[in-house]
Amino acid sequence: MRLADSFRSERFGAVRIHELQRVIELDSGALPDTGASGQSSGSRVVSANAIRAIESEMVVVVPCMNETRSVIEGVLSGIPHDCLIVLVSNSDRRPVDRFEIEVQTVEQFCRLTGRPAITVHQKDPGVAAAFKAAGLPELIGDDGLVRNGKGEAMLIGMALAALSGRSYVGYVDADNYVPGAVHEYCKAYAAGLHLAGSPYSMVRISWHSKPKLRDGRLFFSRRGRSSEVTNAFLNRAVAEYSGFGTEVIATGNAGEHALSLELGLRLRLAGGFAVEPYEYIDLFEQFGGVLESAHPDVVASSVPVLQIETRNPHFHDNKGDEHVQGMRMQALNVLYHSPVTLPAVRAAILEFMVAQGALEPGQEPPRERVYPPVGSLAFDLLYDALDAEATSFRRIGWAPAAPVPARWPGLGSAIPVSPAPAREPVAAAD
Amino acid sequence: MRLADSFRSERFGAVRIHELQRVIELDSGALPDTGASGQSSGSRVVSANAIRAIESEMVVVVPCMNETRSVIEGVLSGIPHDCLIVLVSNSDRRPVDRFEIEVQTVEQFCRLTGRPAITVHQKDPGVAAAFKAAGLPELIGDDGLVRNGKGEAMLIGMALAALSGRSYVGYVDADNYVPGAVHEYCKAYAAGLHLAGSPYSMVRISWHSKPKLRDGRLFFSRRGRSSEVTNAFLNRAVAEYSGFGTEVIATGNAGEHALSLELGLRLRLAGGFAVEPYEYIDLFEQFGGVLESAHPDVVASSVPVLQIETRNPHFHDNKGDEHVQGMRMQALNVLYHSPVTLPAVRAAILEFMVAQGALEPGQEPPRERVYPPVGSLAFDLLYDALDAEATSFRRIGWAPAAPVPARWPGLGSAIPVSPAPAREPVAAAD
Ligand SMILES: Nc1nc2c(ncn2[C@@H]2O[C@H](COP(=O)(O)OP(=O)(O)O)[C@@H](O)[C@H]2O)c(=O)[nH]1
Ligand SMILES: Nc1nc2c(ncn2[C@@H]2O[C@H](COP(=O)(O)OP(=O)(O)O)[C@@H](O)[C@H]2O)c(=O)[nH]1
Ligand SMILES: [Mg+2]
Ligand SMILES: [Mg+2]
Repeated sequence: MRLADSFRSERFGAVRIHELQRVIELDSGALPDTGASGQSSGSRVVSANAIRAIESEMVVVVPCMNETRSVIEGVLSGIPHDCLIVLVSNSDRRPVDRFEIEVQTVEQFCRLTGRPAITVHQKDPGVAAAFKAAGLPELIGDDGLVRNGKGEAMLIGMALAALSGRSYVGYVDADNYVPGAVHEYCKAYAAGLHLAGSPYSMVRISWHSKPKLRDGRLFFSRRGRSSEVTNAFLNRAVAEYSGFGTEVIATGNAGEHALSLELGLRLRLAGGFAVEPYEYIDLFEQFGGVLESAHPDVVASSVPVLQIETRNPHFHDNKGDEHVQGMRMQALNVLYHSPVTLPAVRAAILEFMVAQGALEPGQEPPRERVYPPVGSLAFDLLYDALDAEATSFRRIGWAPAAPVPARWPGLGSAIPVSPAPAREPVAAAD
Repeated sequence: MRLADSFRSERFGAVRIHELQRVIELDSGALPDTGASGQSSGSRVVSANAIRAIESEMVVVVPCMNETRSVIEGVLSGIPHDCLIVLVSNSDRRPVDRFEIEVQTVEQFCRLTGRPAITVHQKDPGVAAAFKAAGLPELIGDDGLVRNGKGEAMLIGMALAALSGRSYVGYVDADNYVPGAVHEYCKAYAAGLHLAGSPYSMVRISWHSKPKLRDGRLFFSRRGRSSEVTNAFLNRAVAEYSGFGTEVIATGNAGEHALSLELGLRLRLAGGFAVEPYEYIDLFEQFGGVLESAHPDVVASSVPVLQIETRNPHFHDNKGDEHVQGMRMQALNVLYHSPVTLPAVRAAILEFMVAQGALEPGQEPPRERVYPPVGSLAFDLLYDALDAEATSFRRIGWAPAAPVPARWPGLGSAIPVSPAPAREPVAAAD
């Protein structure tokens, strides 16, 4: 894969957000890895071998809720062979057991391709029991089951990724109509994680365009409505510290993203659709230098965030307008309530939400649920309980290589984090 | 890439048409090439190395007529690095010179990626002069220029592929909205040509589905209208010899296909949109065992036609209904007039065309233009004339490795072919 170089970046404490980089070639041939040298002007190649090395350490989590079988099958076909597939479903089990159909789809795919996979259902009582036993009772709702939500599915996926012993986790929605886009996302994850060159790294995707129906014709619009708002406010939050306006963040709502587990297990994930923008905010909170960090080792290193603009259009199931409005507001809710968000930005958020009719004047935006880091789990207990109680926990040609250790190695007792009160801003752009 | 095995095939003389094979995985990982052994039940992997070996011998021809810059750019980004790009344009040069914009797009892409390309314009007087000089005056219309038509563009592309000294040529339309689909087509070409295991081989793509607008919603329909009719009649033509009904042909109209130049240079290409179905018909005429072949070496070998169903939807510019109707009829025209088409099939074609209102009762379908094989060209003269006279013949980082030989090695004097009169049918299905 060949990526355009990213020439600019914006620093927020230890977090370094790189300007959006375009994919130039999906397949850059049998070239050797040119590394950091500016060999071909303005772009760099990540060799197939370097990509494969990351893929064989990557788990791809597919959150899925009532998507059609053929679409899921297409998504699976696009995930590179060496990645471990983890399907986290919240699909209806009545009147038809859609989850069983999904499991069959995954099993059949794995049989044909000789590859492993893991499936789990979000509403399996055994899954709730396992997360409770492992130390994350916050995930459980009043009905005693894991709460609904995409963030919750991603959290489960990350925990399973940690169980697998692999080093990276990437996310791919189950409702993508273009297997080639899924393929490109995964390749971009691997290429970006390779280039990031830090144990604490994240890659976020900005799709090239999104086909939309308008007056019975198709248009390829460049930006989603929800994304524009989220990105504008995230950038404003950064600019308020640096004193310089910026547009560096282009992936605030990126559903498609990947990260090293070294980083991911330290992050606090938000529930529902707040999960994606909140990743930025938690990076700022934990590693931004504004609040004290529980991870001095990470702060001493750096936390690169690469943003990659893929070539394929993002062509997925259209879930309607209400959904988009909801997503947008969830992003603003979490930003509003973050201790790193400065007063001017909070005021702007309030003003916007009132103007949108999403908030009565004088009200505060609701808080979104934020979970403790997945790294705080006792993974041995998690695995044992899943094994014993979760009937939806299907291991297709997969078993842990060794007894699952209680803690992710190296994460130690620094987890869980409880951020200290705010102190003087120290972040700066450069 | 992992492909489903093709268990059945239909033989027509030396031509062996393999049943449609699905792509199971776009990327099948770092596995060794499993070759013919049925290692993974029902499917086989073509290793990345085997694919790369074909790609570095492959020319990808992009016929292009007034497509938008960003779409063309996307198509280029999906063509694997090791393939040589040949853009054959018939775009307007006035009031805006769209060809110059295309050339700029190709040049910029090649600069960024360090790869070579060739461009040419179908209506360049120098191109007409070159084909005339090289021995293909049939290509020239009354205005002294190369005729319009996709078949004509493909013919030019094949001639340039032959000049390049590479062994394979593949075709990819310029109006594809999904770079990942282009990428998959090219990988499928390479995988199929590798598996075919014959110097005379062809790979034809059947796309998984085609998004269509209906009542303001998107549907993914499995088959094009035009394709259904073409395939039905081609299958009927085969069945008439074997005595057994068949549905083996699923790619009669396949715009996306690739072939070895050893085969391609022997084929007679048809003009316009008749080109794709006529490839099947010419295979039957030249190697079907019904008419005497000018190529006993090919007939003694075998001519595998692999058909691959790709994963990605085929999502291209919508050129309207009239165009589809036109394409369908061109396919039937060539089939009707082929000496291998038996009387019952010809009668059925007439009946269908009259029922469709495409023909008055008692009329004959028009004949389509069919050109002599590209292998009959004097390539040295072609190159010299292009070099001297064709201002649109831009070589971007490319030059012939050695003086261009007059004839494609091995093709000898067997070219051009003029088929002998029909004799008893000898083809059979098995
Ligand atoms: N497991 C799980 N998956 C979900 C949930 N909500 C959404 N998804 C899946 O997450 C992906 C993205 O959700 P979608 O509604 O399409 O959001 P959008 O693409 O951001 O508009 C899709 O594959 C959904 O099936 C959930 O509560 N649990
Ligand atoms: N060079 C050249 N390209 C053509 C011509 N006609 C069509 N094309 C291109 O061939 C491809 C397929 O043509 P299109 O009209 O989309 O046919 P369809 O996709 O089969 O419906 C597109 O990339 C067109 O731009 C032609 O006369 N000359
Ligand atoms: Mg979606
Ligand atoms: Mg088209």
